[in-house]
Amino acid sequence: MNLPTLSDIQSAHKRIEPFIHRTPILTSHQLDTIFGCDLYFKCENFQKVGAFKFRGATNAVLSLSEEEKKHGVVTHSSGNHAAALALAASMNGVKARIVMPETAPSVKKNAVAGYGAEITFCKPTLQAREETTRHIMEETGAALVHPYDNFNVICGQGTAALELLEEHGDLDIVAAPIGGGGLMSGTSTAVKGLNPKIKVIGAEPLNANDAWKSFTTGKLTPSVNPITVADGLLTSLSELTFAIVRKNVDDIFTVSEESIIECMLLVWERMKIIIEPSSATVLAVIKENPEFFRGRKAGLIVSGGNVDFRKLPF
Amino acid sequence: MNLPTLSDIQSAHKRIEPFIHRTPILTSHQLDTIFGCDLYFKCENFQKVGAFKFRGATNAVLSLSEEEKKHGVVTHSSGNHAAALALAASMNGVKARIVMPETAPSVKKNAVAGYGAEITFCKPTLQAREETTRHIMEETGAALVHPYDNFNVICGQGTAALELLEEHGDLDIVAAPIGGGGLMSGTSTAVKGLNPKIKVIGAEPLNANDAWKSFTTGKLTPSVNPITVADGLLTSLSELTFAIVRKNVDDIFTVSEESIIECMLLVWERMKIIIEPSSATVLAVIKENPEFFRGRKAGLIVSGGNVDFRKLPF
Repeated sequence: MNLPTLSDIQSAHKRIEPFIHRTPILTSHQLDTIFGCDLYFKCENFQKVGAFKFRGATNAVLSLSEEEKKHGVVTHSSGNHAAALALAASMNGVKARIVMPETAPSVKKNAVAGYGAEITFCKPTLQAREETTRHIMEETGAALVHPYDNFNVICGQGTAALELLEEHGDLDIVAAPIGGGGLMSGTSTAVKGLNPKIKVIGAEPLNANDAWKSFTTGKLTPSVNPITVADGLLTSLSELTFAIVRKNVDDIFTVSEESIIECMLLVWERMKIIIEPSSATVLAVIKENPEFFRGRKAGLIVSGGNVDFRKLPF
Repeated sequence: MNLPTLSDIQSAHKRIEPFIHRTPILTSHQLDTIFGCDLYFKCENFQKVGAFKFRGATNAVLSLSEEEKKHGVVTHSSGNHAAALALAASMNGVKARIVMPETAPSVKKNAVAGYGAEITFCKPTLQAREETTRHIMEETGAALVHPYDNFNVICGQGTAALELLEEHGDLDIVAAPIGGGGLMSGTSTAVKGLNPKIKVIGAEPLNANDAWKSFTTGKLTPSVNPITVADGLLTSLSELTFAIVRKNVDDIFTVSEESIIECMLLVWERMKIIIEPSSATVLAVIKENPEFFRGRKAGLIVSGGNVDFRKLPF
């Protein structure tokens, strides 16, 4: 299996730099006091389409051959990757077709439609998504850009951690949410490539703990219909992302739904920024494991800020 | 009546600079496209205590004599000014006593208590607040720091506009919310002092339109028990702020409750930052008066981000 290296992520960064936002890294004196450590929030909620996914999608689109670009791209996604691919494709004159579960939050459906992509709705199961996607690929010749099981996507996602360490090279820990493992794969490859001494931690909802199970048992163990408020983390690791996570990640911590909601509210109230529940898992890990973080400098990848405000979990 | 000048605001800025955050000025390509103008958001929601009020309160505390500091400060406030005075006092070793209406949002009550101030609750009427405050002043000798009818508070509030114009001197318009008129007085004094050609616009809820009435009729006309989602704008102009507003402000626009809520949601969704309803009045003015703003560069003072997330108006 061809695993990405630091150099692949650095190349991706050069490629996508003209298209992405270099997002700010925020700090909060109040949260540092509450948790007893120094926190650096890499704010991908301020990224285009409101999520880190725009980095990977852009890298994937820019890595297509001219011939492939003519046939367009297709993906299945519960939301942020869909919007990201739709915008990345549209910015490069490429047609995007998106397969979405009918149950996706309306804010995400509207975003995808707004970027000019063609949406096909399907039942909210992995099987329905994959079948619908395969059908579109056969009919149109579109290139599949998988949300995370894709080398170029992973390299793009790793560029957020690259920027984080460019500005704060002295971190002790870097933590990111883990769903399908694309962000975690890119993040851990970038961090370990730059400085193997930095601990890399994955944050996962206990209610969708396939990565923790796979990591702990050494055997890929997908979740079956998980339910969590962190709707960006319902997906399970692939063979590729599992291989990268096993190689680079130091530990995975699972967190309760209550901690996720509490920490999301804490960031809204104290930092005045909107983060989505998936992003709050990382702060929830710190809340549930204070001794691991106390006195340390930790960089947190805030994965996104797309929230359906009419369906808030509090 | 002694009206503040640009030079008073510049002195206030020097005085408070070591204590305040220099807040960021954000832009949004999406909102510029929606409204057809260039918007510059001066983000006082990221100020300490989550509101511009910290500027005025800090200037007031730092302007006390040593003798006055010994007796502490007292104020009555529906929220943000209370938290601001509590923190400003505590940072300078001064005791703060705060008179709050029982009905204040819990997030604001908790903030004030967290900053170590002594809270006295009263009925939610202007009369009850003033009587309770007078009683405390007589008992303790504390200096009153009125939320807006105070020369030093007004000078502090004007420093946000000062910073805005330092970075963007080429604005055509500066707009800010208008409640008691402290922010508007400071803002308009700073802007007109630096460049009289810049239009200064006040944004007020139609449901609490005392400033619009006073401005239009030329006669100070306080509101009687107004009800609006913009809970920071329930107060009415004083003689002092009315005099400054008449002198410096070009126009006041009133906005509907629906526009305020819609524009607050728009900022949350597109910019991923939390602004309170009072701050959304300014964007609501642009939404309701697109022809006035089209093609123009407008600076908007985002007054604060303190929202009770369990009592959202949508």
